[in-house]
Amino acid sequence: MTPVVFAFPGHTGLMRQLQAETGAIAGTLVLHRFPDGESYVRLDTPVAGREAVFVCSLADPDAKLLPLLFAVAAAKDLRAVRAGIVAPYLAYMRQDARFKPGEAISSATVGRLVSGIADWLVTVDPHLHRHASLDAVYAIPSRVVQAAPAIATWIAANVTKPLLVGPDAESGQWVAQVASAANAPCIVLDKTRRGDRDVTVSMPSTERFRDRTPVLVDDIVSTAHTMIAAIVDLRRAGFAAPVCIGVHALFADHAYAELQAAGAARIVTCNTVPHASNAIDVDAAIAAEVGALLGRKAV
Amino acid sequence: MTPVVFAFPGHTGLMRQLQAETGAIAGTLVLHRFPDGESYVRLDTPVAGREAVFVCSLADPDAKLLPLLFAVAAAKDLRAVRAGIVAPYLAYMRQDARFKPGEAISSATVGRLVSGIADWLVTVDPHLHRHASLDAVYAIPSRVVQAAPAIATWIAANVTKPLLVGPDAESGQWVAQVASAANAPCIVLDKTRRGDRDVTVSMPSTERFRDRTPVLVDDIVSTAHTMIAAIVDLRRAGFAAPVCIGVHALFADHAYAELQAAGAARIVTCNTVPHASNAIDVDAAIAAEVGALLGRKAV
Repeated sequence: MTPVVFAFPGHTGLMRQLQAETGAIAGTLVLHRFPDGESYVRLDTPVAGREAVFVCSLADPDAKLLPLLFAVAAAKDLRAVRAGIVAPYLAYMRQDARFKPGEAISSATVGRLVSGIADWLVTVDPHLHRHASLDAVYAIPSRVVQAAPAIATWIAANVTKPLLVGPDAESGQWVAQVASAANAPCIVLDKTRRGDRDVTVSMPSTERFRDRTPVLVDDIVSTAHTMIAAIVDLRRAGFAAPVCIGVHALFADHAYAELQAAGAARIVTCNTVPHASNAIDVDAAIAAEVGALLGRKAV
Repeated sequence: MTPVVFAFPGHTGLMRQLQAETGAIAGTLVLHRFPDGESYVRLDTPVAGREAVFVCSLADPDAKLLPLLFAVAAAKDLRAVRAGIVAPYLAYMRQDARFKPGEAISSATVGRLVSGIADWLVTVDPHLHRHASLDAVYAIPSRVVQAAPAIATWIAANVTKPLLVGPDAESGQWVAQVASAANAPCIVLDKTRRGDRDVTVSMPSTERFRDRTPVLVDDIVSTAHTMIAAIVDLRRAGFAAPVCIGVHALFADHAYAELQAAGAARIVTCNTVPHASNAIDVDAAIAAEVGALLGRKAV
């Protein structure tokens, strides 16, 4: 039987890609919040004997994780062959260690909760800093979609003489990958993080690249303070206004306006979290990965 | 070693009772929300070798369940002997069956998630409509604190010639228990529920009780529409303005003001969910149950 895809709000484009790629039917997902704040979930399309796919990006995760797990558990309950999660943005990957005594390692707990309900997981560029792969956090099979090829293609088409810039050491390996695909040079700045909202960036020697357009690339843009500090340092070092690329457009509070005001030539993100800055489409890459996982490709 | 109690915001009274009853030390719980909406939890009191108790009432549950489970998982991780939850109000007990095809049975999923992390659970009057006990939903040991004795004591002290009234059939058995403890007669109304916010109540023949003060008692007061419909019917049948007692004061939106406006002589709730109407203290009963579970009683 053909798979069925249920999309949480904001994912109609990815839903269509998944249908095109896998031949899946579009499921109807009914979501409701009761007056007492509890979430109600109903699958209005039968799942018995089918693969069930649930699409839900997990920005602002506390409000979304329970309804998502209710939906997946319902599909299993109603005898879906398997029920998996496509989370273009996967939350709770940053607290992956105990930085201070007594801290809860939320990534591990979310990994356990999700792995206890869902059969598989597909996501785009999870924040894997200390872990080699998602398998360190999730006990279920998972597949990671790389945004780097789509980002490199966008840069090649839209930026002349780009210089890829990683705003901090964490981004280093990953920015190098984009640079290589875009056939462009690459530098990585040093970041000193003093708190959630207080970040400074230091500048390596970069005179030979001054004629290039700096392209800052980071995986998650939340407060944007890392990128803003990088813009300030790049401008101070005599560079042109940089293009800012984020994979996951979280943009907390006024972060987007602040990043614009800080002198970004352009702000561009992948469409893993719905946002006005989405310009790099990774839906096809996600759909291909889900198709491979389900062992299907639409005709 | 003495147990350690961590209380989420709003539970200082119960924290003190638990300390008095069990000799537990007060733990320091640090809660923080990151700019991207993720929850941060830290236990600033060592738990290794201790019983760890987490107090968190679960009204408006989607925002609270994840941080609570992070805290409990951290305690286990940090080698607490056991880590248990005291949830004076336990959410997600009402969707305990599939009323329409395709519905997620959220009570079962929350039961699985909590049972996979915590070692035990104590709550007050959970909404057990179709299930005989919490064991049908929770795989971990649980204890239920009855609010009925405290409610009966309050009625005996505050209402002359009470007539206990259950607003619907679901409340029947439970209201009868309060009536018996308060040594008062009891009637139960019939409810027809058409939707979340649209409820009517029908009236049995009750002439012989007209000189009594009706005391409506229900376990959960959320929209208060069930109670409001009961007030209307009681007044129409010639009764005095009723006293309204709820165990769990959820009071969605303007429910409290609407219940006052509908002609309640007085609105009184147990202190399982912090609210201005709290007047019936069940903290001592909760602390006694937790003390029994931990096998401790303070000197």
